[in-house]
Amino acid sequence: MSENVKLAEHTWPEVEALLKRDPVAVIPVGAFEQHGHHLPLMVDAHMAGTVCEAAARKAQGDGTDIVVTPTVWTGYSPHHMGFPGSVTLDDDTFSAVVGHVARSLARHGFRRIAIINGHGGNMNLIKNLTQTLFYEHGIRAAAASYWDFALADLAAWRQSETGGIMHACEMETALMLATRPDLVRMDEAADQLLDRSTYFGADLLAGGSVASAATFRELSPSGVIGAPTLATGERGEALLETMVARLATFFADFATWPLGEKEETRT
Amino acid sequence: MSENVKLAEHTWPEVEALLKRDPVAVIPVGAFEQHGHHLPLMVDAHMAGTVCEAAARKAQGDGTDIVVTPTVWTGYSPHHMGFPGSVTLDDDTFSAVVGHVARSLARHGFRRIAIINGHGGNMNLIKNLTQTLFYEHGIRAAAASYWDFALADLAAWRQSETGGIMHACEMETALMLATRPDLVRMDEAADQLLDRSTYFGADLLAGGSVASAATFRELSPSGVIGAPTLATGERGEALLETMVARLATFFADFATWPLGEKEETRT
Amino acid sequence: MSENVKLAEHTWPEVEALLKRDPVAVIPVGAFEQHGHHLPLMVDAHMAGTVCEAAARKAQGDGTDIVVTPTVWTGYSPHHMGFPGSVTLDDDTFSAVVGHVARSLARHGFRRIAIINGHGGNMNLIKNLTQTLFYEHGIRAAAASYWDFALADLAAWRQSETGGIMHACEMETALMLATRPDLVRMDEAADQLLDRSTYFGADLLAGGSVASAATFRELSPSGVIGAPTLATGERGEALLETMVARLATFFADFATWPLGEKEETRT
Amino acid sequence: MSENVKLAEHTWPEVEALLKRDPVAVIPVGAFEQHGHHLPLMVDAHMAGTVCEAAARKAQGDGTDIVVTPTVWTGYSPHHMGFPGSVTLDDDTFSAVVGHVARSLARHGFRRIAIINGHGGNMNLIKNLTQTLFYEHGIRAAAASYWDFALADLAAWRQSETGGIMHACEMETALMLATRPDLVRMDEAADQLLDRSTYFGADLLAGGSVASAATFRELSPSGVIGAPTLATGERGEALLETMVARLATFFADFATWPLGEKEETRT
Amino acid sequence: MSENVKLAEHTWPEVEALLKRDPVAVIPVGAFEQHGHHLPLMVDAHMAGTVCEAAARKAQGDGTDIVVTPTVWTGYSPHHMGFPGSVTLDDDTFSAVVGHVARSLARHGFRRIAIINGHGGNMNLIKNLTQTLFYEHGIRAAAASYWDFALADLAAWRQSETGGIMHACEMETALMLATRPDLVRMDEAADQLLDRSTYFGADLLAGGSVASAATFRELSPSGVIGAPTLATGERGEALLETMVARLATFFADFATWPLGEKEETRT
Amino acid sequence: MSENVKLAEHTWPEVEALLKRDPVAVIPVGAFEQHGHHLPLMVDAHMAGTVCEAAARKAQGDGTDIVVTPTVWTGYSPHHMGFPGSVTLDDDTFSAVVGHVARSLARHGFRRIAIINGHGGNMNLIKNLTQTLFYEHGIRAAAASYWDFALADLAAWRQSETGGIMHACEMETALMLATRPDLVRMDEAADQLLDRSTYFGADLLAGGSVASAATFRELSPSGVIGAPTLATGERGEALLETMVARLATFFADFATWPLGEKEETRT
Repeated sequence: MSENVKLAEHTWPEVEALLKRDPVAVIPVGAFEQHGHHLPLMVDAHMAGTVCEAAARKAQGDGTDIVVTPTVWTGYSPHHMGFPGSVTLDDDTFSAVVGHVARSLARHGFRRIAIINGHGGNMNLIKNLTQTLFYEHGIRAAAASYWDFALADLAAWRQSETGGIMHACEMETALMLATRPDLVRMDEAADQLLDRSTYFGADLLAGGSVASAATFRELSPSGVIGAPTLATGERGEALLETMVARLATFFADFATWPLGEKEETRT
Repeated sequence: MSENVKLAEHTWPEVEALLKRDPVAVIPVGAFEQHGHHLPLMVDAHMAGTVCEAAARKAQGDGTDIVVTPTVWTGYSPHHMGFPGSVTLDDDTFSAVVGHVARSLARHGFRRIAIINGHGGNMNLIKNLTQTLFYEHGIRAAAASYWDFALADLAAWRQSETGGIMHACEMETALMLATRPDLVRMDEAADQLLDRSTYFGADLLAGGSVASAATFRELSPSGVIGAPTLATGERGEALLETMVARLATFFADFATWPLGEKEETRT
Repeated sequence: MSENVKLAEHTWPEVEALLKRDPVAVIPVGAFEQHGHHLPLMVDAHMAGTVCEAAARKAQGDGTDIVVTPTVWTGYSPHHMGFPGSVTLDDDTFSAVVGHVARSLARHGFRRIAIINGHGGNMNLIKNLTQTLFYEHGIRAAAASYWDFALADLAAWRQSETGGIMHACEMETALMLATRPDLVRMDEAADQLLDRSTYFGADLLAGGSVASAATFRELSPSGVIGAPTLATGERGEALLETMVARLATFFADFATWPLGEKEETRT
Repeated sequence: MSENVKLAEHTWPEVEALLKRDPVAVIPVGAFEQHGHHLPLMVDAHMAGTVCEAAARKAQGDGTDIVVTPTVWTGYSPHHMGFPGSVTLDDDTFSAVVGHVARSLARHGFRRIAIINGHGGNMNLIKNLTQTLFYEHGIRAAAASYWDFALADLAAWRQSETGGIMHACEMETALMLATRPDLVRMDEAADQLLDRSTYFGADLLAGGSVASAATFRELSPSGVIGAPTLATGERGEALLETMVARLATFFADFATWPLGEKEETRT
Repeated sequence: MSENVKLAEHTWPEVEALLKRDPVAVIPVGAFEQHGHHLPLMVDAHMAGTVCEAAARKAQGDGTDIVVTPTVWTGYSPHHMGFPGSVTLDDDTFSAVVGHVARSLARHGFRRIAIINGHGGNMNLIKNLTQTLFYEHGIRAAAASYWDFALADLAAWRQSETGGIMHACEMETALMLATRPDLVRMDEAADQLLDRSTYFGADLLAGGSVASAATFRELSPSGVIGAPTLATGERGEALLETMVARLATFFADFATWPLGEKEETRT
Repeated sequence: MSENVKLAEHTWPEVEALLKRDPVAVIPVGAFEQHGHHLPLMVDAHMAGTVCEAAARKAQGDGTDIVVTPTVWTGYSPHHMGFPGSVTLDDDTFSAVVGHVARSLARHGFRRIAIINGHGGNMNLIKNLTQTLFYEHGIRAAAASYWDFALADLAAWRQSETGGIMHACEMETALMLATRPDLVRMDEAADQLLDRSTYFGADLLAGGSVASAATFRELSPSGVIGAPTLATGERGEALLETMVARLATFFADFATWPLGEKEETRT
């Protein structure tokens, strides 16, 4: 079973053996929230886990020792709570859950922990978590969203104008068509773009200069922000392949990072 | 998709429609921890989710409106941290995660929330959670472990003497053989029974009178407490069928409980 | 004064001397809450302290070094807040108070700490506390309610049918008649049994399989659940004697438990 | 039982009746800590409860409706932890316990809550608690130490020079001789005065201008600061009588304070 | 730049050099709250910083190595929130901010930390902070308000009767006239004295025996308690000079205090 | 005084009058940390306050009602704690301080609150704060760093290659030369560029795709990352003027944003 990247399917003696090879551990983090009329609640958790496992298999095939934990499906989604079915933690609990998973792994000896995210609302928290894990616990984690490694690819791939890639959008719909077409109702998909001050971000590839919170109900009655109708399964497969390759490359790079001694930072 | 018991595969308009029928919501809760040399880390989360989904399908077939969330796989397992791969939350974080899932569901209008557990170490916390959810948030949740509904059946089913059913044991090994035989290494299974003061519990069916903590490393070098070698796939299937039926009966009963007004209890 | 079991009446040099004999320390824990029309608010705290001190004296007479702290009278009683005079902590504060008493004792060198409870609502918290004390602070505490050591005796002693022993009931009324008859108003006592789903516990000796919270006002307008009218002072004295003996036996046993090294469990 | 000032001995219907008369509620607060070689650990809790109950009886005899809760015996005593047997909460837990007792009483309708303290180390916390109770919960509590009402009397009564009244001192030893002479070992009493910067307080009647923490072990190897050898039972009885009278006068005054509406102060 | 007492204007190598001389560090702490119709919101923060910097310069001129941090201008002022513009932290956050500044300094090697306060509402918290800093972190801090060193001088200086020095009063108005006359509107100043139970304090020099919270709106519609009309710039300059001298004397004394080893007090 | 943008210099009646005009409130947020051998500890707090006050004055001159609070000088700087003099809060305390300032202002009726930051390490926390302020408290705040409004200008202005603008760099040194040349030691300035994995950001204008924490001591022994030697006072004045203009434009825009009703998001 040593080639299985799913940590969940290992026994403890197998993990003990694996740790001798200084493996990368990956924690996929998602959310559980509305994705419009055409996508199910599970999109963010499903995509984070799917991309991570595929990338880990690819990296492993290329010689990187690596395992992936189950996906933390409980994200930070207060802005979606106006839509039935959405689940949210508060910010402290979210950080505590992901933090304890990382701390548990670090305690057993995992020294390279990648937190790979599938939900925009988690990003500030995940980034801050790499700080508290390091400054308070001496744990070197790296955090990013799965699309962060493929932003240039995404720009080349898109057909939508700015505003088309945000939530339940061209990208997410295509990726779901590529991986779980049975759960996509394209007949219910409808485009919805934001019309806001230029100080705000309105697209994954065009972030604004100012942070300010709003609820999704205010922004979009359907729950969609973007252009899902442009998505096809074929385009989704192409995008997925690219994203998996980019993430696999990062995993391989991460496995080689030098690990300095941690200086004491606590007061 | 209205007959699908997996909440994760619903869209928000589907959940909105479902809520009009006052459905039961089930939150499976597991853990991620060592289960000896022969079982993988995922046993508790896998079994909680598997039994809940099967029981929910059965209850739904019998006319109960019901959905199941994804399994909360991060449990309270500090006693297993001596074995590589185990993951634990601290007690407050564990209660906060499950509590926020329940509170999110309650906010959307779910009025009957069942928290079904697959890990002994979670039990005190899950029970206390039904108290804080009700006294602090007015949410009526019910909590039990999946085996709690089948204790008499388990007593009839078992072949082991007292001590044989505890952890990575006759019961868990049989249930894994019935559901994921590919992950069971029966050649690595070995029995290990406790030898302790009679004030302690040493079997799931023979709880002790005194609570006192210990680490699993102290109690069992292999991580097993019980008699896994007695397990077979056939016996596991029989037990699973019974457990699913018992839980389905509870879900149907729970759907009919009267819901009084909550009296204010906060100071 | 070395034979005095009350820690409160010791000077610090006396405690210093006592610690050389590796004594048991007992922390009685109660609550402050309504007990129907016929019993005072202090029942749970009074009985926990009374049984502990009597049992400690008996154990000491039999050769066990042992002291008892004052009773923590502030319990977890949100379900009783509908009745005037009841006092409750929230769950975190309750655990923190008892935990700090135990941690203070452990710091001075007490290695065997028994937390003996007199209120059902405290039980989940007390049990969990033995876990956090051990996993986070390395302190081996044991926790139980005073009746847990005499369940078989109680079954033999009772005259009521199932449902008669729960709160302000046959047992508690008898024990109060035996110890503080001046505070019992038998003319105000009236029986009240629960009528609930079989999934719930309705008697101290018949626990249910499901945990779910309710307020006492919902369950019983008088505040009684059980059969107090069956209680007499004579029966109370007999029961008390048995309970004290059982607890004294436990204290003597506890004083002999081996104390292994604590393995590090924190992440 | 309506003339009984002990709230613990009331039934809930008695409390319900009492509340119609807008009674004062008193919460005695003590500590559990070393008091030198000649006094027991219980001094602070014992004296707070004793003075409060006597003063409440006196105020009640003069026409004030009043009840006294059991004494919160767990105080804030980290500076005494170097002496075996001392127990301390941390500051947050201490404030939470006393605060929850007050909040529980307020919830039942008690509108005048006096927190009467017997341990110097609690004072900052008790004072701050009257702020958070009012600004966060709208509860008007009053807080003082039992000696605060008799400072002028104490100055007249004392035989010691400055430095004689601080801890396990002339005052506390006299009060213990007056109330529990069986627990006082005058043969072990020895005077010990502080020799510190004039910026510090060195006597209950001569507070310094600067707050700065130290441990009692640093300040006094015996645990005494003051002049216990000047104490006699007769002098203690005289002081106690005065203190009880002063506190009773305050209780009567407190019962007449106007209760304005609370303005909202939370952000 | 080594004679500059403002820590903010130092580079890190300058601080490194300074630390070799075991300097005193001063943290001025104020508040941001209404001061009647005639004084601005900044009074408490401004005066704490001004007095500290002047006293530090004087002490430095007399040979004491000393630096002053910027003023913590966010105080604990819930009682002023009824007046527009007031800002308050909650009590825990206030203590955490000041505590972290002190802990940061201690981590770099500052061994003598003086917290000098300019707002009455902060006092309980600042005093308690010296306890938690020492008992939990081993840091010896000293805390006082700037007027605490000049109480006798203040009594000699005042022209008002008791009640004239409390808030936006004779003292504060005079000190503002001496330091920022451009911000004082003497034409808007009006005296307002308290009329309360003698158990309460009604003047900075006549503290009451009982603590009990109230809002400033209840006590004074204008926001003033005291006699600001007696203030003049000339009298303010005289008072300021005295206060600065007293505080400088304390700083010099503080620099010579012996620093014992901290005994472990945590449980 | 109504044209004064400093809130600290207002009286409460002036704030009351101002609030009728629905003003913008600005909270400058900085840090207190090492800035190499040539810049003082106060850079981040000083620049945030200076830019905010200048921009507010400009916006006010153009007709926007606006006030600025004092600068919160205590930031989140654990990565700088290896350099003497740096002060840090922990992440929760930092968010609580800024959050309470915003909540205090909102309580008085300020409806447009801009949090303008001067320290990179605060950014994740400030952004998340706009979420918790809105989702938990219904407060619409906007957050950005002062340079976020002038990124294009900065790209045009710079003379350094990528890596030159990061910390104590070309930009910060120039801005300090423009505003406090007395505190800049150009003779001590030395350039230091990062050499890291391309996954990391190494310049303010070239953010990396992955977040991962490190201490500044690891990255740069001098504390500088960037090219301070390219800075001149003249260039700093030009940059400052542009930045002030950009921020003033934002303040004017912010004053016109529509304010929808907040939907309930709490569970």
